[in-house]
Amino acid sequence: MGYSTEKLSEEKVFKDPVHRYIHVRDRVIWDLIGTKEFQRLRRIKQLGTTYLTFHGAEHSRFNHSLGVYEIIRRIVDDVFFDRPEWSKEERLLSLCAALLHDLGHGPFSHSFEKVFDLDHEHFTQEIVLGNTEVNKVLTKVHPNFPKQVAEVIAKTYHNKLVVSLISSQIDADRMDYLQRDAYFTGVSYGHFDMERILRVMRPKEDQVVIKHSGMHAVEDYIMSRYQMYWQVYFHPVTRSAEVILTKILHRAKDLHGQNYSFKYEPIHFYSLFAGKTTLEDYLKLDEAIMLYYFQIWQEEEDNILRDLCQRFMDRNLYKYVEFDPAKEYKKLAELSTLFSKAGLEPEYYLVVDSSSDLPYDFYRPGEEEERLPIHLLMKNGDIRELSRESEIVDAISGKRRTDHKLYFPYDLITDESSKKNIKKQIRTLLEI
Amino acid sequence: MGYSTEKLSEEKVFKDPVHRYIHVRDRVIWDLIGTKEFQRLRRIKQLGTTYLTFHGAEHSRFNHSLGVYEIIRRIVDDVFFDRPEWSKEERLLSLCAALLHDLGHGPFSHSFEKVFDLDHEHFTQEIVLGNTEVNKVLTKVHPNFPKQVAEVIAKTYHNKLVVSLISSQIDADRMDYLQRDAYFTGVSYGHFDMERILRVMRPKEDQVVIKHSGMHAVEDYIMSRYQMYWQVYFHPVTRSAEVILTKILHRAKDLHGQNYSFKYEPIHFYSLFAGKTTLEDYLKLDEAIMLYYFQIWQEEEDNILRDLCQRFMDRNLYKYVEFDPAKEYKKLAELSTLFSKAGLEPEYYLVVDSSSDLPYDFYRPGEEEERLPIHLLMKNGDIRELSRESEIVDAISGKRRTDHKLYFPYDLITDESSKKNIKKQIRTLLEI
Amino acid sequence: MGYSTEKLSEEKVFKDPVHRYIHVRDRVIWDLIGTKEFQRLRRIKQLGTTYLTFHGAEHSRFNHSLGVYEIIRRIVDDVFFDRPEWSKEERLLSLCAALLHDLGHGPFSHSFEKVFDLDHEHFTQEIVLGNTEVNKVLTKVHPNFPKQVAEVIAKTYHNKLVVSLISSQIDADRMDYLQRDAYFTGVSYGHFDMERILRVMRPKEDQVVIKHSGMHAVEDYIMSRYQMYWQVYFHPVTRSAEVILTKILHRAKDLHGQNYSFKYEPIHFYSLFAGKTTLEDYLKLDEAIMLYYFQIWQEEEDNILRDLCQRFMDRNLYKYVEFDPAKEYKKLAELSTLFSKAGLEPEYYLVVDSSSDLPYDFYRPGEEEERLPIHLLMKNGDIRELSRESEIVDAISGKRRTDHKLYFPYDLITDESSKKNIKKQIRTLLEI
Amino acid sequence: MGYSTEKLSEEKVFKDPVHRYIHVRDRVIWDLIGTKEFQRLRRIKQLGTTYLTFHGAEHSRFNHSLGVYEIIRRIVDDVFFDRPEWSKEERLLSLCAALLHDLGHGPFSHSFEKVFDLDHEHFTQEIVLGNTEVNKVLTKVHPNFPKQVAEVIAKTYHNKLVVSLISSQIDADRMDYLQRDAYFTGVSYGHFDMERILRVMRPKEDQVVIKHSGMHAVEDYIMSRYQMYWQVYFHPVTRSAEVILTKILHRAKDLHGQNYSFKYEPIHFYSLFAGKTTLEDYLKLDEAIMLYYFQIWQEEEDNILRDLCQRFMDRNLYKYVEFDPAKEYKKLAELSTLFSKAGLEPEYYLVVDSSSDLPYDFYRPGEEEERLPIHLLMKNGDIRELSRESEIVDAISGKRRTDHKLYFPYDLITDESSKKNIKKQIRTLLEI
Repeated sequence: MGYSTEKLSEEKVFKDPVHRYIHVRDRVIWDLIGTKEFQRLRRIKQLGTTYLTFHGAEHSRFNHSLGVYEIIRRIVDDVFFDRPEWSKEERLLSLCAALLHDLGHGPFSHSFEKVFDLDHEHFTQEIVLGNTEVNKVLTKVHPNFPKQVAEVIAKTYHNKLVVSLISSQIDADRMDYLQRDAYFTGVSYGHFDMERILRVMRPKEDQVVIKHSGMHAVEDYIMSRYQMYWQVYFHPVTRSAEVILTKILHRAKDLHGQNYSFKYEPIHFYSLFAGKTTLEDYLKLDEAIMLYYFQIWQEEEDNILRDLCQRFMDRNLYKYVEFDPAKEYKKLAELSTLFSKAGLEPEYYLVVDSSSDLPYDFYRPGEEEERLPIHLLMKNGDIRELSRESEIVDAISGKRRTDHKLYFPYDLITDESSKKNIKKQIRTLLEI
Repeated sequence: MGYSTEKLSEEKVFKDPVHRYIHVRDRVIWDLIGTKEFQRLRRIKQLGTTYLTFHGAEHSRFNHSLGVYEIIRRIVDDVFFDRPEWSKEERLLSLCAALLHDLGHGPFSHSFEKVFDLDHEHFTQEIVLGNTEVNKVLTKVHPNFPKQVAEVIAKTYHNKLVVSLISSQIDADRMDYLQRDAYFTGVSYGHFDMERILRVMRPKEDQVVIKHSGMHAVEDYIMSRYQMYWQVYFHPVTRSAEVILTKILHRAKDLHGQNYSFKYEPIHFYSLFAGKTTLEDYLKLDEAIMLYYFQIWQEEEDNILRDLCQRFMDRNLYKYVEFDPAKEYKKLAELSTLFSKAGLEPEYYLVVDSSSDLPYDFYRPGEEEERLPIHLLMKNGDIRELSRESEIVDAISGKRRTDHKLYFPYDLITDESSKKNIKKQIRTLLEI
Repeated sequence: MGYSTEKLSEEKVFKDPVHRYIHVRDRVIWDLIGTKEFQRLRRIKQLGTTYLTFHGAEHSRFNHSLGVYEIIRRIVDDVFFDRPEWSKEERLLSLCAALLHDLGHGPFSHSFEKVFDLDHEHFTQEIVLGNTEVNKVLTKVHPNFPKQVAEVIAKTYHNKLVVSLISSQIDADRMDYLQRDAYFTGVSYGHFDMERILRVMRPKEDQVVIKHSGMHAVEDYIMSRYQMYWQVYFHPVTRSAEVILTKILHRAKDLHGQNYSFKYEPIHFYSLFAGKTTLEDYLKLDEAIMLYYFQIWQEEEDNILRDLCQRFMDRNLYKYVEFDPAKEYKKLAELSTLFSKAGLEPEYYLVVDSSSDLPYDFYRPGEEEERLPIHLLMKNGDIRELSRESEIVDAISGKRRTDHKLYFPYDLITDESSKKNIKKQIRTLLEI
Repeated sequence: MGYSTEKLSEEKVFKDPVHRYIHVRDRVIWDLIGTKEFQRLRRIKQLGTTYLTFHGAEHSRFNHSLGVYEIIRRIVDDVFFDRPEWSKEERLLSLCAALLHDLGHGPFSHSFEKVFDLDHEHFTQEIVLGNTEVNKVLTKVHPNFPKQVAEVIAKTYHNKLVVSLISSQIDADRMDYLQRDAYFTGVSYGHFDMERILRVMRPKEDQVVIKHSGMHAVEDYIMSRYQMYWQVYFHPVTRSAEVILTKILHRAKDLHGQNYSFKYEPIHFYSLFAGKTTLEDYLKLDEAIMLYYFQIWQEEEDNILRDLCQRFMDRNLYKYVEFDPAKEYKKLAELSTLFSKAGLEPEYYLVVDSSSDLPYDFYRPGEEEERLPIHLLMKNGDIRELSRESEIVDAISGKRRTDHKLYFPYDLITDESSKKNIKKQIRTLLEI
C-alpha cells in the first residue's frame, strides 16, 4: 500500500529530445527503470536496421519506452485527472504498462522472431510474470499487480479504457514512436500536434475518445503515420538489410542443423537453434551479441554465412527491382534456376520481400480485429467513428497497400570473372 | 586524374537531422563512405557512455563524420569557392580529411586508450596509410594522396589554411559536434547560428578568419561550447560510467597479467593485453565487441570483474562527492585504508576523477600549443584576436576550470550485512 | 544592360524567421525593395483579420513578398542554374515578378475589394506599369521590362515555365505563405519539406515538374495546404471579423450615398465611394488608414456604424451557427423579419458567410481553368499528373468543400432590456 | 467572492507560437482580455520600430502580455502550487498583474514618451485605477483589488515575492520577451531553457530564488539577454528609425508652438502638445493613429516635417558613423555649423544617439536601485548571489557598455545639386 503511492523525495527528470523532459515522481516507476531487464532495452534499437538507411535512427527502445510512459503520465495526471469516468486507482497500472509494454523485444526483432519462431509479446509476459527484477518491483505493489500489468499489455485486462490508452489506433505508443522516429531520422513527416490531441482525449466507458474539436489534429496524426510507414518504416533499403539479416540467421540455423562446425562456438544461439529458449537465455540477447557474432562469422569457412555477414557489417546490401508475384512467378522460377547455375544459392541470394508481410502494425503484428476504430465525441455527446466525419481519413482508410520487391546481390551478378553468359541472362531478365 | 574529379551520375543525399541533408556528388567521397573502415564508425558512439546520462545520446561517430564533411563541403563549394586566397585544388583533400578525421577512434575511446595506452590519432594515420579499403580509394586519386590526407589530419600539412578548416578553435569538427550532441541529448545549449558563421568565414593566408560583423555569432558559439562541456561532456554521471568502464578494462588486463583463467576466452583482447595491437586487430574492435565481453564477464568467477560488469550493463553506477585533492589527500588515504578493511579494493572502488584530465579538447587531447586563436577580419583589413574585441570572450578565455570528484559504490558501503562499523566510518568521512 | 547585371558590392541579407536569411546581390532587387510602393506592403497584413483569431498572425505582406523572392532565387540560382531547359535570361524577370506579385494588395483586401468592387491584381499591373518608383527601377533594366514583369504576374507571359514558377498549384507563393502563416500563427500544420521539393523541381518545356522521387514531399505539402485552409484561413472567428469589417465599409458607403454628414471627413474614402479610385489614391491606403477611421467612427452619430466599429476595435465579434442555405432559407427569412422587429437591421446583423465564397485560392480568386495540375517526372522521362500516382492526393482532389455559417451579435439578442419576446423567438429559432 | 474563483465552463486556449498554448480557466482573466483597453495593445508593436530592421518583428504587446500571463500561470499553478512559502491567495493577483503590466504603453513608446514627457507606467496605473473596463472587471473581484494590482505593477505591493515574479532580473516579463522577440525576428539568440528555469524557481520569503542546480540555465538566459540587447534591441538601424520618429514628433510639436497651420488638423495631438493628456485622450492613441498622421504629413508644407515623414514611411533612414562625445565634441560643433550652412537644420539632421540612453532595462526605464540581484538557493539552504557562483555571469556583470552614434541623411549630404563645397567638407569631416 505504502509502496504503491510512495513518491521520490525530489522529482527526477530525464532530458528527452522529443518530450523535453520525462518526469518521474513515483518510486515504483523509478525502481522499474533501474531494473536490469529495462536497462537491457538500451541495447536494442527502436528501428532495427533502419539506421543503415537513415543514419540518425540509432535510438533504442529504452528511449521510446520512457516516451510512452511520459505521454500516459500526462494523460492520467493532467487530462484525465479529475474526470469522473476515470478511476484514479488505474493510474499506476497504466504507467507501469506503458513503461513496460515493449520489454520483451529481442535484438532486431522483426527478422529474429521470424527465423526462430519467437514472439516478443510472449516474452514481455514472461518478464513481467517470471523471476525477474521487474516482477519483484511490481509484486511489491501488490501480489496481483504483475498479473494486471501483463493483462493490460496483452489487452485482456477487464478495464478496456486502460487497455486503449496503450493499444489502439491512437495510443501513446504510436504517438511516441511517430514523433521519436521522425526526430531521430530527421524526416519532416511525423509532426502532429500531440499537445492538442492530449487535451481533447476523454475517457468514455471502455475507450478513449477524441473531442470533435480535435479532429484535425487527429487527421494530421493519421497522415503522419501513413507517411512514416511508407517513407521510413518500409523503406526498400532498410528491407534489403532485413533480408540479409534474416538470411544470416537462417544460414546459421541451417548450418547448425547440418552439424557444421563453427570456428567460434555460437553459445548464445544454441537454445535458439534448438527452439528451447528460456527466459534467462532470452534476456542475455541484445544487439551487441548479434553484432559480435556477425563480426566473427566474417571469418567462418562457410562462404554464404561469411559473405552475408560481411555484407551486413560493411553495408554492402542487395539491390532490388519491383516484382509482381501474380504476373512474374514464372520469371522468378527462371531466375532461380539461373542463380543456381551461376553458383548463387537462390534461397539466400534471390529474395522476394513484401511489405504486406509488414502490415500496418509494424511493431506489433496483431490481429486485424484488434484494431479498434478511433471515435469522436460530438458536441451533443454522441460518439461517431472518425472516418464518418473526416473526408481525408475516409479517403485513405481501409486501403491496404502492398509492395513487393525482388532483392539480389548486384555485385555478384555483374562480376564477370565467371559464368559470364548466365549472369548476362540474369541481368536481361531483371532488366538491369 | 579522372577519378579525382569524377561525379556521380546523380547527386546522393543522406537525410541528416542536424544539417537536413548531406550532399555527395564526388565519386571519391561516395566510395570512401562505402569502405568497411568507415562503416565501422557506425558501431562506435560519438559520446561514449554519455547515453547512460542523456538517453538520446546514442548517435555514432559515423553520423558526426558525415556532418563534418558536409560543413566543409559548404565552405569550399559555397563560401570559399571564388575567393582568390583559396586554391581549388585543395577541395577534395579538405573533403576527404573532414570525412576521415575520426576514423581511428576505438570503442569508448576515452577509457580504452587510457588503459591500453593507445592513441586513436595514430590509428587514423595507419588506416589512411595502411592496407585498407580507405587507402585503396585514396590511392586511386593519386599515389601521394593518402599521405596528404594523413598530413591534414595530423596538422602537419604545408597549407595551414586547409589544416585550420578541420582543426582549430572554430573548425568544422567542433561546429558539427556541438550541434549534433545538443540535438541528440536534447539539451537547449549547443545552438548557435552556424549559417551566419559560415557566411563570414574567409580564407586568409594560413588560416580561416572571421569577418568582424560575425563576432556575435562566434561569441554565441563559444558560449555553447562552454555550456556543452560542463553540462554534457563532463556530466558527473557520465564520468561515473567512464570510471567503471576504465576499471573493467583495467581489471581484465590485471587478471590476464595474473594468469587468471577466463571462463570464455577474451580473444579480442589478447593483443591489447600484450600491447601489440596490429591495425587488423584494431579494426575488429567496436562497441558491440566490448558489450559482448561485459555481458559474458558478468558470469566470471572474479568478484570484481563480475561486479563491475554488472554495474555497467545494468547502469548501477557509482555515486560521488566533491573532492579537493590539495586539502583532502589525507582523508583519501584514510578512506582507502577503510575500504580495504571493508573488503572493497580501493583501486577499483574508490576513484578520484578530475575533469582536468578532460581538458577543453575533450575529443582530441592535443597539446596546448595547437590551439590556434580565433582571428577576426576587421573592416579595414586588419586581423585581431577575438578576445581583444569581444568582452564576453575576454571574460572567460584562458580560465581553466577543474573539477574533482570522488566516486564509490554507494550500495556497497550502505550494505550493513557485514563490516557494519567500518562502513559507518566510511560514510561519516564521506559525509553521506 | 549594365544595370540588369549589376551586383551589390557586398551581398545584403535580411534575417527571416522562415527561410533563415534572404539574400540579395542584385542591384535591381535592392532598389525595388527600397521603393515606397514596396515599403507600403509593411502596412498591410498578410492574413487580414486572422490576427483576431491567432494573435501571432500580425505579419505583413512585405514579409511574404521577400519570402517568395527568396524561394525563386534558390530555384533559379541553385536548382535550375545549369539546366538546358532553363534560359538564364529569365532569371531577373522571375525574381522581380516574385518580389512584386502582391504589390497591388489593399488594406484587408478580401472585404475591401468586395465592397468597393476593386481588384488588387489590376492595381499590381498599374503599379508596375504606371508612374511609380517601382516602374522607374524596372524601366532602367530596359524599357520593355515593366511590361514583361506585369505579364508574368498576369500569367500572360509567353514563357509559361516562368509563369508556373510564380503561379501554379505548387508555386513559390504558396510554398512561402503556408510555411510563413504556420510559423506566425504557431499552428503545427503548414510544415513540409520545401528543401526536398526544391531539389526535385525540374524545368520541362512550359512548366515546372516534380521528379517522382519527391512525390511524398508534395503529398505532405498538399495536406498542409488542406489543413491550413480549413484550420486557419477559413477559421469561423476570422470570418466573423471579416463580416464585421465588410459591414463597416458597406455602412460607410451607404451613409455617404445617403448624404450622411460624417463628424470627421473620410477624405481617404471619397474616391472609393465614387468608384473612381486613381492609382495615387490607392497607394495612400493601408491598414493604418483603415484603423484610424474605424477608431474615429466609434464616435459617429450613426448607431450602426458606431456599433460595428466598436465591435471591430474591441474584438467584440459576432457569434455563429451552422447554416444550410438549401434547407434553411425559410428560417433565414423568418429570422430576418424578427431581427427587423427587434430593431436590428438584418442587412448588418444577420449575415450568411460561405467559405465557398473563399475558394481553394484564398489569395488570388482566379478562374478555375487557371489551376494547372501538378505533374510528376517519371524515371523513364514520362510526365504523369500527380493524382494518378498518389493515392492520397487522388482521394482528396477535386472535392470542393463548402461551409455556410450564419453570423449575428449574440450580446444584442440576449440583451433583455427591450423586445424581450422577439429576442426569445430569435434565440429559439437559432437554437442557442 | 464567487467571481474571483469562477472558472469558465470549458478552458479557453490561445494558440501561441512561443508557449504553444496559453490557457485560461479564470473568468476574471477572460474578462480582462476582452476589455477594450487590453485589446488596444494589439495596435502597439512590442518592439516599436525594430520591424524596419528585422522584418519579422511585427508582433504586438497584446502577444507579449498573454505570454507573461502564461508564464506566471505555470509558476503559480504548477511550480509554486503546493509550496508552503507561497500563499495561494496571491494567485489571481499575480495573474492579473502579469497580464496588465504593460497596459499603459503608448504608440512607439520610447520616442513618444521622450517628446511628450509622458510615462507609460503612470498610464498603466491610471487604466487600472480609473474609469475603464479593466477597472470594472477588477473591482468585481473586490473593491480593493484594482489598487493591489496597481501596487504589484508599481512594485510597491507589500508582498515582495509577488512583485519579484513580475519585476526582477529574471522575471516572467523578460523571459517572455527574450523568447518572443527572438522568435519573431528569427535571430538565433534568445533561446534558453525556460522550462528548466521554471522548474527550479522557489518562493523564498520576499523573493523568487533559483535552485543552484539550475544555474547553468540562468547563465544561458543572461547570455541570451546580453545578445538580444546588442544584436536586436540596440541595432543601429532601429535607432536610426527611432531618431527620425522622435524628430517627427518634435517637429510637429514645435510647429504647433509656432502657430503653424496644419493642412489637416492633428486632433489627436492637441492634448499632447498642450501637455494635458487625459486618460481618455491617451487610450485613443495607437500606432495606426500615428501612421495615419505620418502619412498625411507627407503632404504638409513644412519641408522638414514632410521630409521626415517621407523618410519614415518609405524607410529612407539616416546613416551613421561612430561618435565619441568625449573626444569629438568640437567636430560635432563644426559639423553643426556646416549643416546649417548647407541648409540642413542640425537639430533635425545631425543627431547623436547613445545607447546609454537606452539602458539595460529597455522596456522599463527604471531606477538602478530596483534591479534586484538573482539569488541561488544552495543545497544546504543558503542563499548566494548569482555572480558569486557563476564565473560567466561574474565576468560580465556590472559592465556598462555604451555606444554613441552620429546620425545624418546620407542622401542629402551627397546630393551635389547645391552647396557642393560645404557638403564636401561635411563628408570629409564625417570620413565618408
